Amino acid sequence: MIIIMQKNAKDAEIAHVEKILSNQGIHSERLIGEKQTVVGIIGASHGLDISTFSSMAGVQEVIRVTSPVRLASRLTHPEDTVITFSDGTSIGGSSPSVVIAGPCAVESEDQLRRTAELVRKNGVRFLRGGAFKPRTSPYSFQGLGFDGLELLKKVSEEFGLFIVTEVMEPAHAPRIAEFADIVQVGARNMQNFPLLRQLGSINKPVLLKRGPASTIEEWLLAAEYILSGGNDQVILCERGIRTYETTLRYTLDLSAVPLIKELSHLPIIVDPSHGTGRREIVAPMSRAALAAGADGVIVEVHPDPLRALSDGVQALTFEMFEEMMSELVRIGDAINRPVLLEAFTKPKSVKAPIRTAS
Amino acid sequence: MIIIMQKNAKDAEIAHVEKILSNQGIHSERLIGEKQTVVGIIGASHGLDISTFSSMAGVQEVIRVTSPVRLASRLTHPEDTVITFSDGTSIGGSSPSVVIAGPCAVESEDQLRRTAELVRKNGVRFLRGGAFKPRTSPYSFQGLGFDGLELLKKVSEEFGLFIVTEVMEPAHAPRIAEFADIVQVGARNMQNFPLLRQLGSINKPVLLKRGPASTIEEWLLAAEYILSGGNDQVILCERGIRTYETTLRYTLDLSAVPLIKELSHLPIIVDPSHGTGRREIVAPMSRAALAAGADGVIVEVHPDPLRALSDGVQALTFEMFEEMMSELVRIGDAINRPVLLEAFTKPKSVKAPIRTAS
Amino acid sequence: MIIIMQKNAKDAEIAHVEKILSNQGIHSERLIGEKQTVVGIIGASHGLDISTFSSMAGVQEVIRVTSPVRLASRLTHPEDTVITFSDGTSIGGSSPSVVIAGPCAVESEDQLRRTAELVRKNGVRFLRGGAFKPRTSPYSFQGLGFDGLELLKKVSEEFGLFIVTEVMEPAHAPRIAEFADIVQVGARNMQNFPLLRQLGSINKPVLLKRGPASTIEEWLLAAEYILSGGNDQVILCERGIRTYETTLRYTLDLSAVPLIKELSHLPIIVDPSHGTGRREIVAPMSRAALAAGADGVIVEVHPDPLRALSDGVQALTFEMFEEMMSELVRIGDAINRPVLLEAFTKPKSVKAPIRTAS
Amino acid sequence: MIIIMQKNAKDAEIAHVEKILSNQGIHSERLIGEKQTVVGIIGASHGLDISTFSSMAGVQEVIRVTSPVRLASRLTHPEDTVITFSDGTSIGGSSPSVVIAGPCAVESEDQLRRTAELVRKNGVRFLRGGAFKPRTSPYSFQGLGFDGLELLKKVSEEFGLFIVTEVMEPAHAPRIAEFADIVQVGARNMQNFPLLRQLGSINKPVLLKRGPASTIEEWLLAAEYILSGGNDQVILCERGIRTYETTLRYTLDLSAVPLIKELSHLPIIVDPSHGTGRREIVAPMSRAALAAGADGVIVEVHPDPLRALSDGVQALTFEMFEEMMSELVRIGDAINRPVLLEAFTKPKSVKAPIRTAS
Repeated sequence: MIIIMQKNAKDAEIAHVEKILSNQGIHSERLIGEKQTVVGIIGASHGLDISTFSSMAGVQEVIRVTSPVRLASRLTHPEDTVITFSDGTSIGGSSPSVVIAGPCAVESEDQLRRTAELVRKNGVRFLRGGAFKPRTSPYSFQGLGFDGLELLKKVSEEFGLFIVTEVMEPAHAPRIAEFADIVQVGARNMQNFPLLRQLGSINKPVLLKRGPASTIEEWLLAAEYILSGGNDQVILCERGIRTYETTLRYTLDLSAVPLIKELSHLPIIVDPSHGTGRREIVAPMSRAALAAGADGVIVEVHPDPLRALSDGVQALTFEMFEEMMSELVRIGDAINRPVLLEAFTKPKSVKAPIRTAS
Repeated sequence: MIIIMQKNAKDAEIAHVEKILSNQGIHSERLIGEKQTVVGIIGASHGLDISTFSSMAGVQEVIRVTSPVRLASRLTHPEDTVITFSDGTSIGGSSPSVVIAGPCAVESEDQLRRTAELVRKNGVRFLRGGAFKPRTSPYSFQGLGFDGLELLKKVSEEFGLFIVTEVMEPAHAPRIAEFADIVQVGARNMQNFPLLRQLGSINKPVLLKRGPASTIEEWLLAAEYILSGGNDQVILCERGIRTYETTLRYTLDLSAVPLIKELSHLPIIVDPSHGTGRREIVAPMSRAALAAGADGVIVEVHPDPLRALSDGVQALTFEMFEEMMSELVRIGDAINRPVLLEAFTKPKSVKAPIRTAS
Repeated sequence: MIIIMQKNAKDAEIAHVEKILSNQGIHSERLIGEKQTVVGIIGASHGLDISTFSSMAGVQEVIRVTSPVRLASRLTHPEDTVITFSDGTSIGGSSPSVVIAGPCAVESEDQLRRTAELVRKNGVRFLRGGAFKPRTSPYSFQGLGFDGLELLKKVSEEFGLFIVTEVMEPAHAPRIAEFADIVQVGARNMQNFPLLRQLGSINKPVLLKRGPASTIEEWLLAAEYILSGGNDQVILCERGIRTYETTLRYTLDLSAVPLIKELSHLPIIVDPSHGTGRREIVAPMSRAALAAGADGVIVEVHPDPLRALSDGVQALTFEMFEEMMSELVRIGDAINRPVLLEAFTKPKSVKAPIRTAS
Repeated sequence: MIIIMQKNAKDAEIAHVEKILSNQGIHSERLIGEKQTVVGIIGASHGLDISTFSSMAGVQEVIRVTSPVRLASRLTHPEDTVITFSDGTSIGGSSPSVVIAGPCAVESEDQLRRTAELVRKNGVRFLRGGAFKPRTSPYSFQGLGFDGLELLKKVSEEFGLFIVTEVMEPAHAPRIAEFADIVQVGARNMQNFPLLRQLGSINKPVLLKRGPASTIEEWLLAAEYILSGGNDQVILCERGIRTYETTLRYTLDLSAVPLIKELSHLPIIVDPSHGTGRREIVAPMSRAALAAGADGVIVEVHPDPLRALSDGVQALTFEMFEEMMSELVRIGDAINRPVLLEAFTKPKSVKAPIRTAS
């Protein structure tokens, strides 16, 4: 933290700032310039509230130098986090990039099975599907709830797929974690702090979607809630931010991919379905996401998008999905990071993820 | 809902759209123009998902005409909602505009009592103070929890103040509602749907802050969750939206005040403390809020902002608060809507709010 | 400027940074902390490019302390700029707040005269009207050009009004400055640097609208282009910024008013007509603007908004305008800063503004 | 255009709307629903101003169906525009994707020659370099002006490169067009309408950068100004939009690439240098741009970024540039659209572009 004193700050004011720091056991140094004085605390200042100092007499500005992000930061954890599942499948680091696919919402066993069959046939290992749906309007379809989770379990076991599904409230977390291989936190819950805390104590990876108005730092601090609770398996997911441009539903911020790779060790995937809201844009943005270095993509696919109970307009048809998969494989080759593709032979036997060493 | 068919849409495609509507018991009409055909459903189309139709063959665009907002809309409820408290104090409609004031977080009994004394001395009836604090970083002060609520209760009874305090998770709602006269939903929880549903079943007014990236319609739909649960006492609170302009913490969207007054019957107040993040800007924006027609303002005031445990930089000092109060009184006179000012004589005896008739 | 060196920066890297500074004649000081070293340049560093240093080996971050704004900054010019016109009418400082009113575009002599008569009858001294109109589409009405300026001149002389009109290109500036009492730069030209430079050399006040995506600092730097050219008569005009909220055309950023008052000595007025795009919202936001401390408002009024050739939806009717004027007068009284109201007696004789002393 | 009448609209009000349309020679049809009536104009309504109707008595809402974009729209021009240069090199359609590279600003002959040599050695045909620089602050380096253009000419002839350089004001356009093979309009000038009109009459391709707060439609309408002036050679350039996320300078909106491909026939390229402001992010976003289907990228490269006179922090080093080129080649192969690479053998003899047939 750097505290810039005003040009006409009095000695007593500077001394007061230093004393407050000293009272909190923090060593500072004074830099006396021609016109202004600076009080610098270089090193740990996490406990300090910038606003405390910026309000003090004689202080012009307080600048935070050290980011408040700790556990999620690459500075404290230089190596990539790799999340490994029961059968050795992994996400992050130099693992193959993954495709997570499935319907927006679980609607019926038939819908889910047809989708699961398609994605498995195309080598995909992760099935997404919402049983609890956050909907803007109370009058929209809200999901099948725990019945939907049972369907997910049944169908995923049939096809040897890992389940990615959303949790919306703290009280549900333990039970949903029993069904899910990856527990998803939706964009609107990114700063639902009681939920994040609860997820810090489960033993399943958490896919943390970026809030539509969240900065990169806020996103990493949301991850920090989970990590500091003891769960080190967090996957970040860029899903579009809210901007003035409303031709598409959101603005997919792909530059977040290389930026997160620089700032954090956590895996990052991209959701072009929610991030654009238009199925025609999903494949180009999935290609772009992998080309930018994402650890994977999560997309919506539906056997009959016209009859989807939610977000049908952004779901890929089966044909579009298959075409996209072949494109992604080629992009993977071009960037020397293959897309995970695995032939379906037999049901997976064990589903509990193994904690990664990192 | 207006469904614009493509110029070259086939008869069968138009008929298919009409049939799908008809299957759902919805009457539509066909408008045949020179180049295009339009299928119009004028009247109730709440159950329909736009995306279902926008994906259909032959459809160019689907335009929603009727807003999905129902109970919160002025169209269905032309008269202003007025929320009345035990002693007749009221918010909304042509009631005097209110000031809600207090510290960001309850820190100690002394801090709270000094603040309560100040605000009461200035005629204020509503004491704000957070016991559960949503904080961006897990390492920031998170509030005193239920101990804080006990302090709020004790001090508010002493000074005859109504309590405004925040709830963060569904499980806490019933208990917090026992302490609070107004239960606050923070901006980051505006779309925490399980929480909103829970608040639909309590018997206390809810102050619903606007999410920092929420549109007016999303905000009204969040209110709709509470209203449709049976709680018709919702107060909207504009608290700044997130924009590219970061000189101040948020951009306070004061035009939301007249806009909400047009679209909805619910009271709307303004929070210039969070909305600007700078104490020097709070008084001008409070004046502006009342001048624009807000039903009140909610501001932060602290006996010693430099030592505040959270958001000290935006808390008014006691002197600034008193000056602001006198300015607001004059603005109230200018717009023919006085600010609620009541001399403190004796502790209020009953605190439970009486449900408004509206 | 503060240059934070990386934790593991080598002595040679620190020395290199200091040498580069020294080569440019800039004195720096070194602050050695426990873990990091800081190189501070406190004082003039205007000539330095932050990016030069942020790219250097061993540098973690470069923080600019001194704003690049000079002439427009209150730090260098503590007293308010007051712009004075031929008859003593003034804008800024403690002058009465002003209303500038008129049609969006000059359409005909009749339209202009009727509007001029109305505004003059209500005590207004400044007539706005565009002769050159920046339009998003090349197919929209583009203004009457110099014929429109002749009409403005004729009508304004008749009613003793000062003219506020827009300039769109550098080559037109000298000629438009002959007609105008205040030359307006539209929002989309805020960073049209050749135009700003040209306006630095004219002897008329410039009303500089804020660009719809411009930060406060960029806006002040745009003013700096005019000021540094020798024209010290700049009036800033907040007219709405572009945000994700599109219920109204723009988000009027009223907090810019107290913020600009703090950062700059220049007058600031508010344009709620363009800033909201809806006539029903104009009066509440005009009241709010004055309550927040603006030096005036600029609004659109039209004898027949339904037939306006541009932006009719935001133009006040005559009745709305008269009602708004009486409201503004009362707000002015409430904040101890009256609205300028002057009875019309005779044509003004001299129109050239007198340069303010400041 | 669809005009939705209010539920309680009177017959006379509906008839009035129809009469106004009829007076303008426009045929409308009336759709009478259970609760509301709609007046539909399907077909050409370009001349109509939505605001005229939305203000009329009895009108609830007016919805534009037909976009005001004409010449730039794919609806009116289904085939891709391909821009062809003197030696057959082309941009757009199924042409190989292009790389445009060079320094932000022309600083010296040595700097330019070294950069030109590098880019040519890597197969690049287009050299970018600014001689007139729009700078936020009047105190920043403003470019070498026409001297810079002379340097560009000299060096580009030496290496057989086409010149891409910026024009800032209408009066300069004809002369700059003599030097440039592609005339660039900077983001801040995207709605400088006099400049756009001037460029409508030159015989050189125009690279039109997207304004940092411009919607897709405004961008296409800016192109429309040039096209409607008679110059059909417009290349769109996405260069980042301004959002609340400020970790990087702008948010590069890559989803604009597939969206523009759908809406328009014009070529679109991407500028990740300005769009991110950080050299480390340039290569990943360039890969992503091509993977998303862009017709090319424009990047900044500098022999000594630490000493660059402008925007050094975003300029690639020579090493980074070479590595990026090899990555782009592989992405090009993956998507079956190679990157244009041409060995340098001899100076090009003719530089004037040949107008494309489209």
